[in-house]
Amino acid sequence: MRIIIDAMGGDLAPREPILGAIMARNEFGCNVTLVGQEETIRKILEQDKIQLPPGIDIVNASEVIEICDDPSTAWRRKKDSSISVGLRMLRDGEGDAFISAGSTGALLAAGTMIVKRIPGVRRAAVAPIVPTGAGGAVLIDAGANSECTPEYMCQFALMGSFYAQRVLGRENPKVGLVNIGAEPSKGNELYKLVNSMLTEAGNAGHLNFVGNMEPVQLASEDACDVIVADGFTGNILLKTMEGTASFIVHALKGLFTTNAKTKMGYLMVKGSMGKFKKLLDSRETGGTALLGLRKPVFKAHGSSDAYAICRAVGKAAEFVNANLIEAIEENVSRLQLSQEEQ
Amino acid sequence: MRIIIDAMGGDLAPREPILGAIMARNEFGCNVTLVGQEETIRKILEQDKIQLPPGIDIVNASEVIEICDDPSTAWRRKKDSSISVGLRMLRDGEGDAFISAGSTGALLAAGTMIVKRIPGVRRAAVAPIVPTGAGGAVLIDAGANSECTPEYMCQFALMGSFYAQRVLGRENPKVGLVNIGAEPSKGNELYKLVNSMLTEAGNAGHLNFVGNMEPVQLASEDACDVIVADGFTGNILLKTMEGTASFIVHALKGLFTTNAKTKMGYLMVKGSMGKFKKLLDSRETGGTALLGLRKPVFKAHGSSDAYAICRAVGKAAEFVNANLIEAIEENVSRLQLSQEEQ
Repeated sequence: MRIIIDAMGGDLAPREPILGAIMARNEFGCNVTLVGQEETIRKILEQDKIQLPPGIDIVNASEVIEICDDPSTAWRRKKDSSISVGLRMLRDGEGDAFISAGSTGALLAAGTMIVKRIPGVRRAAVAPIVPTGAGGAVLIDAGANSECTPEYMCQFALMGSFYAQRVLGRENPKVGLVNIGAEPSKGNELYKLVNSMLTEAGNAGHLNFVGNMEPVQLASEDACDVIVADGFTGNILLKTMEGTASFIVHALKGLFTTNAKTKMGYLMVKGSMGKFKKLLDSRETGGTALLGLRKPVFKAHGSSDAYAICRAVGKAAEFVNANLIEAIEENVSRLQLSQEEQ
Repeated sequence: MRIIIDAMGGDLAPREPILGAIMARNEFGCNVTLVGQEETIRKILEQDKIQLPPGIDIVNASEVIEICDDPSTAWRRKKDSSISVGLRMLRDGEGDAFISAGSTGALLAAGTMIVKRIPGVRRAAVAPIVPTGAGGAVLIDAGANSECTPEYMCQFALMGSFYAQRVLGRENPKVGLVNIGAEPSKGNELYKLVNSMLTEAGNAGHLNFVGNMEPVQLASEDACDVIVADGFTGNILLKTMEGTASFIVHALKGLFTTNAKTKMGYLMVKGSMGKFKKLLDSRETGGTALLGLRKPVFKAHGSSDAYAICRAVGKAAEFVNANLIEAIEENVSRLQLSQEEQ
C-alpha cells in the first residue's frame, strides 16, 4: 500500500507532515509519497539531520495552495500545487489514498474535480468519527455542503452506513437523523422530508434508520452509529462539541489548581487522565474521510502534528483495506431513492 | 412583585413546583401564585405536612396540558389549563411574570396568543443563557422557530442584545451570528443574508455586531454576549452542548473510579467539584426567557425540581426589574430593518 501525503498542507507544514510520514512508515509499514516543494522538504531533512528511510519518496510540486486562495478554483489555477499533483497521482493509481492537512474547501473541490465522485453520488461529504457513549459515530455531512437537498442527505445516510459497517465494524449500523425532537414531525421542512425518505429507505431494507436523534443522546450507550446532517448543521454540531469540550477542560484545569489539596488530588488522578484526554483529542481522530469520491481522500486537522498525520495514515490504511468505495459503487442503485428531489 | 407559577407543568409536578414556590418565597420575598388543580395541590401540602406561608396563594385551574396534546392548540382546547389560566392572569396584570416547566411548544403558542407579542416583533424566541468562557451568553433562538426569515433573526439579535445589556449587565453586548466560518461569505443563503443585514444594523449603530462566530469559540474568554441562530440550529447547538457535557462528565466519573489511588484523588478535589458541576447544571439556569412577548414568560426545564423552580423565580424577578420589555417596546423601530424580507 502507498499513501500519498500533502507535505505542504496545514499550519505546521512541511516539517510535521514529513515527520508524520516517517512515523507512519515505521508504525504501519506502508509506503509513503510526500508531495510538495522538494527543495524545501530536503532542506528540512538536512536541518533535522534525518535520512529518509526506504519506502518514502518525494514528488515535487512547485506550488502551494494558500489560505487566501479561493478554495473552489485553487486546484485549477495552481495545477502544480501539492494538492493537485497528489490527487492526480491518486487518480492515476500511483497511490492508494491521499491525505492533506490543507484547506478542506480546496481539497473537496480538487477531489471532486480531479478524482471525481462515484457515479450516481450527488455530493461528496465530510465524515469524521465523533465521540459518543457508544464508542463513536460517523457524522455525515460535517461541513462540505452548506446547502443540501433531501436526496444528498439520504445518500449521506447510506454512505455513512457502509462506512460504519466496513470501517467501524458495526454490524447493522443504526442511522439517526440529527434533529430537535424525536417525532418525525419535528424540525424544518428539509428535515421532515428527509425523515420520511429515510423511513422509506429503512422499510425497503436499504439501511437501519432509527429515526430522529437529538444531540443530547450523544452521551448515551445506545447512541446511533451514523449521524446524518446537512453540512451546515453537521458542522455546527461538530464545532459545538469541540467548543464545549474545550470549555470543560479549561474549567477542570481551574478546578485542579484551586489549592494545594486539589493539586495533590490531581497528581493522583493524572495517570488516568491520558485516557480521558485521548477521548477529546482531535489528533487521535487523525483524518476525516471525504466520502463519495472514487478514491480515498482524507482531510487531517489543520493543526496536525507528526502524530496526527501518522494517525491519519493509519485511518487511511484501514479505509483502503475495508473496500468501502467498492461497496458504495456496487450498491449505488440503492442511493437512487424513489422520492428524488433533484 | 408577584410571580405566577404553573403548578402542573414538568416531570415532577405538582410537588416540586409547590416546594419551589415556597423556597422562592423564602429566598426572594416575592409573592407567588400557584396555578393548578387546587385539590391536588392541597392534598400534597397535607401529605408533606406543609402550611402554605403568607404571600403564596393558589388559583384553581381544572385542566392540565399533557405531553400528548397538540402544543399549538392545547391552550385553546383546554381553556381552564394551568398554562392558559396563568397566562391570562399575567395578561390582566394579576402577576408580573409567569413560569412553567411544561411543554415549550404549548407555552410558546399560548404565550403568543394570550399575552401577545410586542407590537412590531415578528416572532417570540427562546433565549437561554449558555455557559461560555466569558461568563455566559444569550443564545437566541434556541428552538421556538424551526423556520426563520432573515428579519426574524435580526430581531432576535436586537432583543438578545437588550437582554444581555439589561439582565446580564454587559455594557455594549457583542452580538455574534453562529456560523461555520468567520468570513461573511460562509454558511447557507439564510446566514449569508443575515450576516449582511446585521452588518448594516451594526453600521447604523443599532447593535454591536462582531460578525460570524464558530461554536468552537464558546470556550474563549472573548466569546460574544449574544449568539444569534435560527431556532433549528440554535436548538442543535444547545442540545449538543448538553450532550457533550454529559458525555464528558460520564467519562470523568469513569476516570475517578479507575482505582484506589484515583478514588482518593477524587476525595481531594471533590470539594471544588461543586463549582464545576454548577457550570454544567441545567437547574442553575432555572428559567429560559421567551423573548418578544408583552410580559415576562419563563420556561423552566421539564425535569425541574424545587431548587430549579426557585432559581427560575430569581431569574424572572431580575427580568422584571430590568424593564427589558419596555426597552424593546421603545426601540421597536430599530427592529424594522431597511432590508425587510417578509
